[in-house]
Amino acid sequence: MGYKPNPLVTANMAAMRSGRRHITVEAILAYFYDYANGTPYTLPSLKGARGRAAELGFALEAFPYNDPDVTPRRLLSILRNRNIQGILIGESQIPIPHIEFEWEDFALVSIGYTLQSPRVDRIGFDHAEKLSQLFQDLSIRNYKRVGLAMSSDLDNRVSHSPTASYLSYQFEQHSSDKIPLFLERDRWNKAAFLEWFHRNNPDCVVTVGNDAMNWLIDEGIRCPEDVGLFSIWAIEGEPPQNHSDFNVSLELLAKTAIEELADRLNSNTRGIPLRRLSILLSSDRVYRHSLRPVAANE
Amino acid sequence: MGYKPNPLVTANMAAMRSGRRHITVEAILAYFYDYANGTPYTLPSLKGARGRAAELGFALEAFPYNDPDVTPRRLLSILRNRNIQGILIGESQIPIPHIEFEWEDFALVSIGYTLQSPRVDRIGFDHAEKLSQLFQDLSIRNYKRVGLAMSSDLDNRVSHSPTASYLSYQFEQHSSDKIPLFLERDRWNKAAFLEWFHRNNPDCVVTVGNDAMNWLIDEGIRCPEDVGLFSIWAIEGEPPQNHSDFNVSLELLAKTAIEELADRLNSNTRGIPLRRLSILLSSDRVYRHSLRPVAANE
Repeated sequence: MGYKPNPLVTANMAAMRSGRRHITVEAILAYFYDYANGTPYTLPSLKGARGRAAELGFALEAFPYNDPDVTPRRLLSILRNRNIQGILIGESQIPIPHIEFEWEDFALVSIGYTLQSPRVDRIGFDHAEKLSQLFQDLSIRNYKRVGLAMSSDLDNRVSHSPTASYLSYQFEQHSSDKIPLFLERDRWNKAAFLEWFHRNNPDCVVTVGNDAMNWLIDEGIRCPEDVGLFSIWAIEGEPPQNHSDFNVSLELLAKTAIEELADRLNSNTRGIPLRRLSILLSSDRVYRHSLRPVAANE
Repeated sequence: MGYKPNPLVTANMAAMRSGRRHITVEAILAYFYDYANGTPYTLPSLKGARGRAAELGFALEAFPYNDPDVTPRRLLSILRNRNIQGILIGESQIPIPHIEFEWEDFALVSIGYTLQSPRVDRIGFDHAEKLSQLFQDLSIRNYKRVGLAMSSDLDNRVSHSPTASYLSYQFEQHSSDKIPLFLERDRWNKAAFLEWFHRNNPDCVVTVGNDAMNWLIDEGIRCPEDVGLFSIWAIEGEPPQNHSDFNVSLELLAKTAIEELADRLNSNTRGIPLRRLSILLSSDRVYRHSLRPVAANE
């Protein structure tokens, strides 16, 4: 085919063909992470990426991209000495404005939406699609007054897709009595949330994380008996709850990221792309016990 | 590596290695299109796909997926006889609810967002990202009253990303005097548009296609002197205009789709995926002469 064959693949296939089936040329991929976060080996994305890499015949090793004692030039030389040809840039909770490195010779993929520069291909979840389906589904469950309550920082992190989807849903409702968004930064607290809740009387709250549910439980308000609740995703480190959510896992994103990286190695696609691809994975909605069921005759 | 090697690639490499460099095993890919549309050979996506396929060593042949004289079973046998292993499902202007076919053995990719079933990986443009950047940019150009005017059918076709982005932008403006959306189906006509325009007095109109600009010109309203105008994308078949837009081309989408299909063939990924990927391509914004420039001191 028109592809330039990848030398590692070719070497491995040659070894296979010559009958030395147990001699494999092990290819190493790099996992780039923020030095400030300390050890990356507990990160779910590294775990998921390592597992899938191993299945595809790669070893994955973690390197901090901003170790103060290692210049970008030194890091490049380390990667070259190890014959590393692919880099997975791990996820970050906060925006990364820029990573200084010579990217040209490497196949590249990043996890999530927080890396701003370089503009490499990135893997994320298809929040916009799932949110739009969610609001349709809440209508089918006969919720009439759905409110959105979340911290504005979390909305920022996913390119405002929760607010955009909610406002679009609200627009389609053609209701004259619209519930205002509770999208707060400094006022993301129990008192302000409950004030918003009691003033607007939603029959279902869409949120992120556990705060809203905990605040409702503290007030003796029950889900789904008194109000429906859907938490778009769980916040890392919070204990798992019994509310409905999207099944989004960084492990799954990382597996897909490794597959994409392997594809780029196979097709010898290197460096920062002319046009970045955003590769969005469908997630499942998981209904636990915080929404009422779909009525049989509706 | 852990990939099962693709037999076509292997055969080709073996032919190369044995010195018969001019004997290539030509792999054929199928382009699926709607029989009702007639000949597909004028479609920009087929043109783009053919070119990129040829560069990668593939021939691309067009097959209607719903020829009334060819059952899905017969079509399957035709594809098998030709040893076709990959299918690109072309774009459609209207939603395709379902295509009946046995997909299991084929590498699959579709162009655009209109195919509802099967849920195969799809290639589209990253409208949401570009729209959010557009509204930021209009603020930098000091537009204070941006309106959105478009046919609701076109908004549906791109999963409501224009209305969702606009409502999100409007929400962030915190203005008490919000311009209502002009999102119309039957009322998408000059009289209704001009009534909305004169009542709301926008200083910039974001739209799709050429209608809005033509209606403004007919009234002697000039862009950008009297009002700014940004047409998100051109409607196929309309003459090119001098207004600013996103540089979206089906040819470019089709090229990316062929690259993705080649990757799937190389990694022997076949059939309908467990979780669909939406692969979104960044587009460029093109500023022609329908917006005022960014002021030097603002």
